[in-house]
Amino acid sequence: MINLFTEHQKSYSDRVETALNQYLGQLSSSQLTLAMQYSLLAGGKRVRPFLVYATGEMFGVTPDKLDAPACAIEAIHTYSLIHDDLPAMDNDNLRRGKPTCHIQFGEATAILAGDSLQTLAFSILAGEQALPIESRMKMIQELAQASGASGMCLGQTMDLAAEHQHINLEQLKQIHHYKTGVLIQAAVRLGLYSAGASAHQYQPILDKYSQAIGLAFQVQDDILNVIGNTEKMGKPQGSDEQLEKSTYPSLMGLTAAKETAQQLYHQAISALDQLPMNSDALRSLAHFIVRRDN
Amino acid sequence: MINLFTEHQKSYSDRVETALNQYLGQLSSSQLTLAMQYSLLAGGKRVRPFLVYATGEMFGVTPDKLDAPACAIEAIHTYSLIHDDLPAMDNDNLRRGKPTCHIQFGEATAILAGDSLQTLAFSILAGEQALPIESRMKMIQELAQASGASGMCLGQTMDLAAEHQHINLEQLKQIHHYKTGVLIQAAVRLGLYSAGASAHQYQPILDKYSQAIGLAFQVQDDILNVIGNTEKMGKPQGSDEQLEKSTYPSLMGLTAAKETAQQLYHQAISALDQLPMNSDALRSLAHFIVRRDN
Repeated sequence: MINLFTEHQKSYSDRVETALNQYLGQLSSSQLTLAMQYSLLAGGKRVRPFLVYATGEMFGVTPDKLDAPACAIEAIHTYSLIHDDLPAMDNDNLRRGKPTCHIQFGEATAILAGDSLQTLAFSILAGEQALPIESRMKMIQELAQASGASGMCLGQTMDLAAEHQHINLEQLKQIHHYKTGVLIQAAVRLGLYSAGASAHQYQPILDKYSQAIGLAFQVQDDILNVIGNTEKMGKPQGSDEQLEKSTYPSLMGLTAAKETAQQLYHQAISALDQLPMNSDALRSLAHFIVRRDN
Repeated sequence: MINLFTEHQKSYSDRVETALNQYLGQLSSSQLTLAMQYSLLAGGKRVRPFLVYATGEMFGVTPDKLDAPACAIEAIHTYSLIHDDLPAMDNDNLRRGKPTCHIQFGEATAILAGDSLQTLAFSILAGEQALPIESRMKMIQELAQASGASGMCLGQTMDLAAEHQHINLEQLKQIHHYKTGVLIQAAVRLGLYSAGASAHQYQPILDKYSQAIGLAFQVQDDILNVIGNTEKMGKPQGSDEQLEKSTYPSLMGLTAAKETAQQLYHQAISALDQLPMNSDALRSLAHFIVRRDN
């Protein structure tokens, strides 16, 4: 299972990075595009592109048609990381072991790089000719819905408001749902929308899978923040504690948090069991999410 | 001419504000949407929506079909103002005589409000059913092209790099072209794209008009920054001088700057003279731009 994940992950990461570089190459060259490139190509697991490719391929879509949605969602994710790291937000100096965008390029350029990455995401989908116009418009709508004031940005607002506050488990789930869950779900939906209309019947099943792995990812992140290794994580261990952030381990205890991650894994797998096609790639990702150590 | 402008301006502003309020009402209610609303509905001349409505109506498109592109471009413009005002950028405390978004809501919320307004722009165009899908996709492409790393954000990057630097007139024009010109041009094009394909032949003529008024607007802004009235402008007179910003009056002298504004006005009118339809609304805007005192 781990080998299967690693194999897919390597091939999808290579693919999306090549495609991202091509899109960047079409922009006017400037300090701004250097900053965008720095953050876009700073590595990372490429979980969202993985979900786009794996879901699309499951329905028989060839990877060349999935490059645009995979790049678009990674551009949105990267913009959100750049802005989240800013001094006025989480004030992080390191990301994946490297200086964050504003440390490397200054705050003004980092703000603009995030802004331009968001624009790039919509531009990529609007300009892609390999997919039918109806599919692309559905993807633009989904991406906007998942990332704006009723999605990711709302989650970030809720997260900032919750710092130094006592919140309960339900509220924590809500924050994560908006902050990361809806974009994970959007990644799977983008893969699905690249397939023909007959595939759309599977959306409710795939949404169940997405919601389970989205939450599992966050629970595991919180667990690793307590027990993990600073070097592997690329950020200081225990940093949530210092910010007095509520986490799954702090609200329910470490053992219960680990059990929750396992339950969510099984929910994700049960959802995939309802699909008639081979979903091994998506299974391997769910497995990775709860087994990873960084 | 002034009466004609005032009449159109009032009706288009009312229209776009009503439509913007409706779009905001569809979002989850939060501190974030309050900040978006605060900045979106803080007044202003609504020049970009004016251009969308006036251009579309010139080709016989009814205003209800122009609400979506008018709102989308105003959302992009407002997001850029919020981010430009941030401490890391122009560090402005006042905008149109009111506290800027980050002064009123804090920096983190202001960053997110700008981010979400950009998303809203694409969401509005993607979700609009009154226009053919091909027109909407063309609008999304145009708006992305005009506002991203090869458009407005590039202009802002160039502008920040030029602070405290000696630049020449050609460089100043380049900065303004990207920073404000391309979005003015996009506003007219969005109006044009709402009309049938037969209207598209007029794009080169309309682009000439847009480029002339876009530059005229900036020249007049610089002139008013020297001779204008702080109260009417909503920002301190002479603020460019304090930032050691290169301006048209500083590079070519006040008299020559005034002459340039007049020449640009005539270029805009000459372009419109080539159109077979009634372009009085666009003419009245060009007239206003070089005659305004705030």
